[in-house]
Parts: sequence; structure tokens; C-alpha cells
Amino acid sequence: MTDNTRNDGLMPFHAMEILKHAKALEAGGLTVCHLELGEPGSPPAPRVIEAVAKALPQAQGYTNAKGLIELREGLAQYYAAQHGVAVDTEAILATMGSSAGFILAFHAAFAPGARIAITRPGYPAYRNTLVGLGFEIAEIPLALGNGWQLTGADIRAAHGRQSFAGLLFASPANPTGAAVNRAGLADIVDTCRDLGVRLISDEIYHGLHYRGPSVSALELTRDAIVINSFSKYYCMTGWRIGWMVMPDALIRRAEILQQNLFISAPTLSQIAATVALGERDYAEEQKAAYAANRLLLNDGLAAIGFDIGRMSEGAFYVYAGISRFSNDSMAFCQTLLEQAGVATAPGIDFDRSGGQGFVRFSYAGTRQTIELALERMGRFLR
Amino acid sequence: MTDNTRNDGLMPFHAMEILKHAKALEAGGLTVCHLELGEPGSPPAPRVIEAVAKALPQAQGYTNAKGLIELREGLAQYYAAQHGVAVDTEAILATMGSSAGFILAFHAAFAPGARIAITRPGYPAYRNTLVGLGFEIAEIPLALGNGWQLTGADIRAAHGRQSFAGLLFASPANPTGAAVNRAGLADIVDTCRDLGVRLISDEIYHGLHYRGPSVSALELTRDAIVINSFSKYYCMTGWRIGWMVMPDALIRRAEILQQNLFISAPTLSQIAATVALGERDYAEEQKAAYAANRLLLNDGLAAIGFDIGRMSEGAFYVYAGISRFSNDSMAFCQTLLEQAGVATAPGIDFDRSGGQGFVRFSYAGTRQTIELALERMGRFLR
Repeated sequence: MTDNTRNDGLMPFHAMEILKHAKALEAGGLTVCHLELGEPGSPPAPRVIEAVAKALPQAQGYTNAKGLIELREGLAQYYAAQHGVAVDTEAILATMGSSAGFILAFHAAFAPGARIAITRPGYPAYRNTLVGLGFEIAEIPLALGNGWQLTGADIRAAHGRQSFAGLLFASPANPTGAAVNRAGLADIVDTCRDLGVRLISDEIYHGLHYRGPSVSALELTRDAIVINSFSKYYCMTGWRIGWMVMPDALIRRAEILQQNLFISAPTLSQIAATVALGERDYAEEQKAAYAANRLLLNDGLAAIGFDIGRMSEGAFYVYAGISRFSNDSMAFCQTLLEQAGVATAPGIDFDRSGGQGFVRFSYAGTRQTIELALERMGRFLR
Repeated sequence: MTDNTRNDGLMPFHAMEILKHAKALEAGGLTVCHLELGEPGSPPAPRVIEAVAKALPQAQGYTNAKGLIELREGLAQYYAAQHGVAVDTEAILATMGSSAGFILAFHAAFAPGARIAITRPGYPAYRNTLVGLGFEIAEIPLALGNGWQLTGADIRAAHGRQSFAGLLFASPANPTGAAVNRAGLADIVDTCRDLGVRLISDEIYHGLHYRGPSVSALELTRDAIVINSFSKYYCMTGWRIGWMVMPDALIRRAEILQQNLFISAPTLSQIAATVALGERDYAEEQKAAYAANRLLLNDGLAAIGFDIGRMSEGAFYVYAGISRFSNDSMAFCQTLLEQAGVATAPGIDFDRSGGQGFVRFSYAGTRQTIELALERMGRFLR
């Protein structure tokens, strides 16, 4: 038997390892403060649950590949209302979370093995999904001193070193929470256009922006692939439902890929998502709690001795320097978990070189969790 | 902008096109008999619905990447009870339908671009998923005269023409319903072992076998990747929940891929699936209806003038020759849909060369649907 011995640098998602370890410790009686995953502590809006309960008794078969038309119409309305852009329902695909959206985007837009640029630090699944699917990656380093912002100049410099066919980029970003404004996004869009680079704009943290409205790439270009999800803003992680908006030239190929790779997104989750779009008041209530958590966590971590740069604008993460405590982020996270009962995500998930000096804290959970985590860490690290 | 102009032969899943067309016709007031998709007409078992309704009010976050332990324990019990084999829960992954299972299997077991063999005719998503993901394919032709059975000799002959690293194979098979017995499966397993070919056994139609028990590859080898789903036997297509059993050497890589490519399967669907495993009486009730439909449809099609070979043993399909009516299967299916209100899947979905002479009928629906379809087709084709 020829085993797959390829050494392609595929790495585990360490935050998931921490979660697994935390669940084992909990099974043994320890209480753990979960700050390791970007997962809202609240369930979806009550009307979402009601709608699903009502739909449950009927048979739920496959939907068409692009998804329920009611959902895609709701998304078109969302783009009109929130972003002032007209999006054709035919350009929208409901996907199994943003996860499946990435797979569809890569294989719709690029040849196998093409090189795609990502930022460092960045969401680890970007790197691992690309590598796992056989694509090449180019990493664009970002700097704490610049508030972890990606600029057109960064893209141009990286492209000059080694060209790439695509750029996958998120604002607000994971793990840093950095968000670009309209001018910053326009700089990125223009640079990609000039270089002939296909932009994939991951807008999963849209809505969770504490200073300004989130600007969609769709407001600036129709050449970008836009990926989004109900997981974060609408508190629907476990439902595995997201969506993507494709440029005209790629719609048909994306639909065919969806038909074959996934058939259709989960039907109940599509029904839930359709209702969730109308429950923005509930989502804003959650966001208000994150906004309060954000201040609490940033201040608390700084007081304990973590290095906090400029407070980030979006998502629900603090990417904090640990130089006072450790130069091994995974060991530090494991110690924090085992000794203090606080689960966090090691920086090496997001940046293999510079990440040893950082840990990501999520403030998507409850205020009580954050208060308890700060108290435990304060006691342990003092 | 560099568009993806790759001409890799990716083709739409024509049955999904027929479904889309059928839904448009229905929106215009036509009633359509749906025999185009392999989709059970019944909902999941009542206890499945009850369990989901009960779980709904709680928050449903991500599960661990492999899936809920209760589900994996249930699956281990299933293998012990139905197949007499001990499967470690750690070797099982809950997946977003068998669809995601294939993606994980290909990238866990093979290098990018590796050549994987599939049968012709076969499930179109096999071919299109492999091509869409950048893998090479080798097609192993099967013959009506041999009851569409795959044999070790077929594999050996194909491998002699052009070697391949893996074989993806289903029994019972789509679209033919052909099923191998224990000796036939042992022949395939042994041949793969001799040739150093990794076997992926798609067992999605297990349970839907009208003459004998379904034999799992796990009864004969631990080197195969086994893929299965709750879609068919448990009537859960729209829930997008399946599972896979990995050989020891590939478990860790599959788990890492799952973490990054998909995070975890839909949580509510995992809860539903856990309960479904205990509802085999309900599943057998559905199967009894398919068994009756099978006889009705085979006899009815033969009476109208379709070429039916040896009646197939499993799944819920009749792959019928249309030589008396047409030599263009897609045109024939479109005419049947528009003129007779019967939706079917064209043979070219399953076999691009020989498929022009065939159409696949699904008998997973209700008896009334099949009776009406036969009556409509009889009237139209006479």
C-alpha cells in the first residue's frame, strides 16, 4: 500500500487541540474558561429557533445547489440595505459554512497548485486548507507597529518577491481584529487589479466592527470573490452555513463545483439563516456585549502584563504579546489551560515564525467567563 | 484579471439541471413526477425529529472535528452489530455528507494530482469532484451483460493500461444498483492490495440491498477508506451528514484536514444521526416500500419498451436502456420532463460515452409517484 507520506507542512489547528484537551480536563471535573475559539456564547435568535422547530416535521431534502431562493433574496436585500450595492441572487451561493466557500472559491478561480497569498498572522485554516488542497502559498507579513494592517504596498512588495494568482484577506481579521477602512480596502482592491491578482474577501466578521461600518469589497469591485457566514454575527457556528458572492465569470463554475463537491448546504440551516437575516436587532445585542467584553479584556490583559498594541477595531479577538511570560506560545497556552483553567489559542496557529510570542484571546463568550479568566490568569501569572 | 480558463472537463451534474428545470416548471403550475434524484420521499424517523426539536433551544456550537462521541460510539456499535467488526471510535469521522468525506479521503490518502480510478457508469460527482479538485481519473468500463459488476480482472486490466493510486467504488452502485457479494468484494480488495492501490469503498447504499446483507470492506481489510452517509438508508439527504472510517495511518491527517477544511459537521445533524442509528425499524419500513417500488418500476419500464438488463440488487435505481426511443439521453430526459412531466437523470451523467443510450430512474419516492410516472410515460412514448 502506497501511503501518503507527503510532507506538505500541513499542521493541526492548535486551537482545536486546546479545545480537545480542555474538554478532556472538563470531563475530569475541572472548570475551564473558554477563550480559545471564536465562537459566540449565545444561541441564534429566538425566531430562528422557532422557525426551525416549525419546519422540522416536514421532509427536508436537498435544495438546489445555490440554495433556497428565499435565502438568496434575503442576502441580496442585505447587500442593498447594508452596503448600498445591488447583487443578483444568481451570483450568490449558500455554502456549508465559509469553510466550503473557500474550497469552492479556490477551485473555481484558480488552477490546481496555483499560488495564493495570505497574511501572517492570519486564520490558520487559510494556510492549511490551501496546503491540504495542494495549492502554493505566499505569506505577506504584517506588523504590530502598523496595527496589523494590510496595505497595497505590502501586497506589491510580496508580489515582487514571488508572484501569486490570488489574495485571500479578511477585514476585520482573525486573529488581530484589524480592520481596514474604505480607503484602505480601495488600496487593496486597486493593487490586486493592477497586479492581475484575484481578491478573495473574507467578510465573516462583518457587522462586528466597533468603530465604523464594515466595507464590503462588493462596494468597490465586481471582480472579487466575497465569502461570508452566519457563524459569527448571527451566532450560528454549529449550523455550518455561510454564503459567497461570485464574479459573473465564475458563477457557473462555482455552481457546478457546488453540485458535485457538496450538492447543497444543510436545508434546516438554510431555513434558519433566512430568518436570521431579519434578526439584526438580536445580533446587535450580542455585539454590544462583545464591545463591553473588548474593553474589559484589553484593559485586564494589559494590567496583567500582556503586550497589547493598538486596540483592534473588529471581530472578537485580542492578539496579545506574551514576551513577559514565555517565548513558546503552545507551551504557554497548555500551562494556562492546565494550571489556570483558561483555554486560549497559541500564536503559532496564526504565524509560525512570529507567533511564538503571541496568544489569541476570544471575547465572544460571556462577561463572567472573561472576568473569571482574568482573575485566574492574574493570580497564576503574578 | 487572470480568469480561470482551465479546460479540465468539469461538467454539470445533469440530474441537478433537470431538477432545476423541473422546479421552474412546477412554479409555472405543472405537476412533475420526481424520479431524477436519489432522494428518499420520507422524512427521517419521528424520534429523530423529536430529538432535534428537544436539542434546538440550546446553543449548538462546533463539535470536535471528528464529531460527537455519542455518534461515533453509535457507529462503532453499528459495525459490531451489522458487520461483526470492531471499529475504534477514533478511526471514525462525522462528515458533512459523504460529499465532504470524499474530499477528505482524496486529500488524506493521495498526493495532489494523483490518478484515481472510478467505474463507468458511476456516480457523476466522483468524476467531477476528482477533476474539480485537480486529480486525474482512470475510468474502468463496466458492462450491462455482466450485470454492471466490477471485478478484480477489470481493475487489473485498467491498471495495466494506465496505473492509478486509488480506486473509488460503490456497492450497491449508483446508477446501476449493482452489488457485489462477499467473494466479489474480496476479489476487489485482494486485487487492490496486490496492485498497491488504495481502495475507497463508498457504502452509502448499504442497507438498501434487496437480496443479501451488504458486505462492508471493513470485514475484509483495514487498508480501505470507508465512506457512508445518513442520506439514503436513514432518509436524511438535506441534513448533510455522513461518516468515514479511516485506516490507522491516515486518521491523524484526516482529522487535521477536517479541522481546517470543514471544522466540524453540522451539530444538529450529528444529534439527529445519533438517534437515527437506533431507528433501523423505521429505515427497514422505508426499504420495504423501495422493494415494492423496485418490482413495479422494473416491470413497468420493461412493458413500455425500456431495455432492462438483469434486475439490480440494491440502491434505489433502475438504469434503463432507451435505444427504442432515442440516442440522446439528455434530450430524451428533457422531452420526458416537458412533455410527460416525468423528471429523470440522463445516462450521460454517469457515462459520457455509453450513457447516451441510458436513463436512470429513482424508485426512492412514493408508489403513487411511480405509478403516475409509468402511466404518463406509457401514454407519451406509445
